[in-house]
Amino acid sequence: MEKEKPKRTKNERATTCQMSSKTATRYATSPSLAAQNSGGFEGARPVTGGEREREEMSHIEPTRVMLGVNESTLKGYPHPSISSRRAFDWTLQKIVRDNTTGFKLLFLHVQVPDEDGSNDMDSIYASPDDFTDMRNREKTRGLHLLEFFVHCCHEIGVACEAWIRQGDPKEVICHEVKRVQPDFLVVGSRGLGPFQRVFVGTVSEFCVKHAECPVITIKRPVEETPEDPIDD
Amino acid sequence: MEKEKPKRTKNERATTCQMSSKTATRYATSPSLAAQNSGGFEGARPVTGGEREREEMSHIEPTRVMLGVNESTLKGYPHPSISSRRAFDWTLQKIVRDNTTGFKLLFLHVQVPDEDGSNDMDSIYASPDDFTDMRNREKTRGLHLLEFFVHCCHEIGVACEAWIRQGDPKEVICHEVKRVQPDFLVVGSRGLGPFQRVFVGTVSEFCVKHAECPVITIKRPVEETPEDPIDD
Repeated sequence: MEKEKPKRTKNERATTCQMSSKTATRYATSPSLAAQNSGGFEGARPVTGGEREREEMSHIEPTRVMLGVNESTLKGYPHPSISSRRAFDWTLQKIVRDNTTGFKLLFLHVQVPDEDGSNDMDSIYASPDDFTDMRNREKTRGLHLLEFFVHCCHEIGVACEAWIRQGDPKEVICHEVKRVQPDFLVVGSRGLGPFQRVFVGTVSEFCVKHAECPVITIKRPVEETPEDPIDD
Repeated sequence: MEKEKPKRTKNERATTCQMSSKTATRYATSPSLAAQNSGGFEGARPVTGGEREREEMSHIEPTRVMLGVNESTLKGYPHPSISSRRAFDWTLQKIVRDNTTGFKLLFLHVQVPDEDGSNDMDSIYASPDDFTDMRNREKTRGLHLLEFFVHCCHEIGVACEAWIRQGDPKEVICHEVKRVQPDFLVVGSRGLGPFQRVFVGTVSEFCVKHAECPVITIKRPVEETPEDPIDD
């Protein structure tokens, strides 16, 4: 069925429907390309050959989708949270579909130092090295979480990158968006009610307001919400 | 370049990476399919042949993307607003890309009765028919707006539908999302500051909070923002 689709016709024809040639480069994956393309409004200025080339470049480069992922509060590492998992599945099924070369997924896992350290409550710390060991163990657990997503992408044939940062997830995600400049950000959400949100704070709401790129929030399906919706 | 992509491998292989077979049908385009698939959690129940068929159906059906579009406050009908135009271009360039058969775009234009009637300030109303004429004229103008988007989709080869509703845009969009059940909603945003938002009210913020599907807000590029950012 997919074989019947008219290949390469879109990029050529889309131009005739585009009043503004500038829109193509706003979220271009290469910041240097976007910087070269400045001034002008609604395509009043004739498009030069070089510009057209740069426009086509931005079509050919994959759409870079950043996903914020975290571990399950119920099962711990290496299990992804239900909402992370849901956001990932949704992105594959509804956005990537079978266009596996058209997208690159960027997985960011933010570890909260204090919270993650709680697993080491029974440990005895006798030297500074013990703390280093603890931090290394935490990092390893985080890597196992990312391994899950990278493994899936590899099986499906979608390009990806994954990395870990430490800090407050909502702040770090917005900081990394600024640094990495993805085309858009996907964040999972537990779909908490207003009363629960007051106590938990929601990363997704913060990112929608503050991230410097479009953000899409994917809620967990009702049938996958645990008895206590704060669990994930 | 696109010709090298591994066709049909994703759907088969994605299954091995899916803990939960239920996630595939949550936003299935056919509500009846989703309704048939109930109960179970994390794929504990063996997947029957019929279920697998339904799952594949949900992959094959195009992703249904609803776009809220409005006319330009600067140029009036049939010109789309800068933010509508931007949201449309972005969806084509970053989501649809060359996968033209994988998506169906659903354009909703909401006419605000009082606001749109202001063009008829100089008209003389002598009979009830005059009001009918006025409403017909307004509707025709709205149709010309939609014609722009439908024409573009037709040129590019993307399936689409477009329709007009009357009322408060934010309320009507959320109502139509509930009725039509798109996979996600794209809304343009003027990117107003907090001070301007207080007076203007933002449709996008309301939809992000209240629409019963994932919502992605696309801001206008800085270089396309008019001197008065309330203009669009």
